[in-house]
Amino acid sequence: MLQKTIEISVLYDYYNQLLTEKQSDIIDLYYNQDLSLGEIAEEFNISRQAVYDMLKRTEKLLYQYEEKLGFIELLKTKNQKISRILDRVIELENKLNLDSHEELQQKISEIKGELDHFLNT
Amino acid sequence: MLQKTIEISVLYDYYNQLLTEKQSDIIDLYYNQDLSLGEIAEEFNISRQAVYDMLKRTEKLLYQYEEKLGFIELLKTKNQKISRILDRVIELENKLNLDSHEELQQKISEIKGELDHFLNT
Repeated sequence: MLQKTIEISVLYDYYNQLLTEKQSDIIDLYYNQDLSLGEIAEEFNISRQAVYDMLKRTEKLLYQYEEKLGFIELLKTKNQKISRILDRVIELENKLNLDSHEELQQKISEIKGELDHFLNT
Repeated sequence: MLQKTIEISVLYDYYNQLLTEKQSDIIDLYYNQDLSLGEIAEEFNISRQAVYDMLKRTEKLLYQYEEKLGFIELLKTKNQKISRILDRVIELENKLNLDSHEELQQKISEIKGELDHFLNT
């Protein structure tokens, strides 16, 4: 369940703009705000079953968007590449530490910081 | 016109999976295969005006997808960041050239190659 919640939250972050307002609200309330099906049903004045059906249909839709567009997969692949490059910069930094080459160490440390920042934004 | 052709081609690359088959075909034939409106009209057995209208509607749709999802802009921003990092690696390499620190030079050259590869895939 936790894995699915994370998956849906990420899909929602990227593709919610393709949903209708109601689809978007239901996913947000259930997965991000942690409301129960009953609470959402009350909020929208519809049956619990209707909320459940809409949730399932919208989840399927989000998975289909990723299947068609593949942006999450693309960004993941790009980030993995940069992560490997970051590992090499760290290796380089360790090598420099042995020689204590101050100015270069400073520069590499800055580049490492930028790569780290790239991976986290 | 050239600028627009490039824009539509890029939008098409990212978002064509959200188009209907016919919308996708018309954009592809006009912008990628360079067919004229008349030639496309003949191909689909519809009027030149109908092709024109569909082309305009589909272009608008592609721009709207980018407005909603913003993936091209996101990738552009990420690539600009990596491009700045690459500049710093080159600066570092130039500094090393002065000292001729062979092993480190080799490593930096490899990292540069990987960053270059990242930007071009």
